[in-house]
Amino acid sequence: MPIIQVQMLEGRSKDVKNNLLKEMNEVVCRILDVSPNQVRILLNEYSEENWSIGGISKADLSKNK
Amino acid sequence: MPIIQVQMLEGRSKDVKNNLLKEMNEVVCRILDVSPNQVRILLNEYSEENWSIGGISKADLSKNK
Amino acid sequence: MPIIQVQMLEGRSKDVKNNLLKEMNEVVCRILDVSPNQVRILLNEYSEENWSIGGISKADLSKNK
Amino acid sequence: MPIIQVQMLEGRSKDVKNNLLKEMNEVVCRILDVSPNQVRILLNEYSEENWSIGGISKADLSKNK
Amino acid sequence: MPIIQVQMLEGRSKDVKNNLLKEMNEVVCRILDVSPNQVRILLNEYSEENWSIGGISKADLSKNK
Amino acid sequence: MPIIQVQMLEGRSKDVKNNLLKEMNEVVCRILDVSPNQVRILLNEYSEENWSIGGISKADLSKNK
Repeated sequence: MPIIQVQMLEGRSKDVKNNLLKEMNEVVCRILDVSPNQVRILLNEYSEENWSIGGISKADLSKNK
Repeated sequence: MPIIQVQMLEGRSKDVKNNLLKEMNEVVCRILDVSPNQVRILLNEYSEENWSIGGISKADLSKNK
Repeated sequence: MPIIQVQMLEGRSKDVKNNLLKEMNEVVCRILDVSPNQVRILLNEYSEENWSIGGISKADLSKNK
Repeated sequence: MPIIQVQMLEGRSKDVKNNLLKEMNEVVCRILDVSPNQVRILLNEYSEENWSIGGISKADLSKNK
Repeated sequence: MPIIQVQMLEGRSKDVKNNLLKEMNEVVCRILDVSPNQVRILLNEYSEENWSIGGISKADLSKNK
Repeated sequence: MPIIQVQMLEGRSKDVKNNLLKEMNEVVCRILDVSPNQVRILLNEYSEENWSIGGISKADLSKNK
């Protein structure tokens, strides 16, 4: 039943994303006691321009490093 | 007033999406008793790589069919 | 597969909500060509204090009517 | 950086929820290579009346079991 | 047109929330060049038990202060 | 701590988006009394085809003007 929405910066490889989906699903099933096929996980990827901390976009934060 | 967020796999045609918007709006207005212009519907489209069931992405599930 | 998030003001009856779930599901299945059990619909209910239009909460808008 | 939104039925104990937060955070940090304090996890709990599968609320599905 | 979803810990007063709605709306209208009534702002309030940083709920973080 | 999700039509320039992030962050910090680095703002941009009012997509509404 649970639905997991992951919001993260874009750029991770397909393997990394697959690992995340697999291991997150395992944790959710084990701890919430639901069967694997009941769980949906959606990955929402953001450009650095569209994600800010302290009012400054990650794009600008990265530039200023 | 209601806001509807639809999360679905990408790939539907514009006509299909327009039909969905139109008919969903009609249902919401009739049942929740609000006027058409009060309703916002947002379509969020996902690649198969970013949507998992049972910890496996739709992309891999489709491949293994 | 589709997930529908409905955001609306609280206060609708259980019957109204059940009708909404039923008819929305029917529209989504018919138009997106998916089977009923693939569709999840989540109702997110808001107090009037936590929903604003034009920067004024619905609670205050209702008061000023 | 990542933000995880968990949508699940209400009723889990505080211990179960704390375990979920802890283990999910560990998976996200390890796989996405971010530090623990960069990760936010939000639990969104739903009544059975507000969550449907196949157009039928979990409340009614549970009743009909 | 824009929809703003604010996710924050519960406990703010009605006045604080009204101020937030009012000033956020003003910023959005001025910068995105839209009229006030086009903007919807929704406040999503979370208990400390349902919000974690670094895998520890705010409730436990507050307790350990 | 607060997380702000902005949902808006695509097409705004980087400068406009940076201004929005900056001024929104300032309002949130001042009114909710949190420090700048505690606030995350995410911009979710939609094509006109995926945003409807009254059941009609913005794309079609713009065409019919």
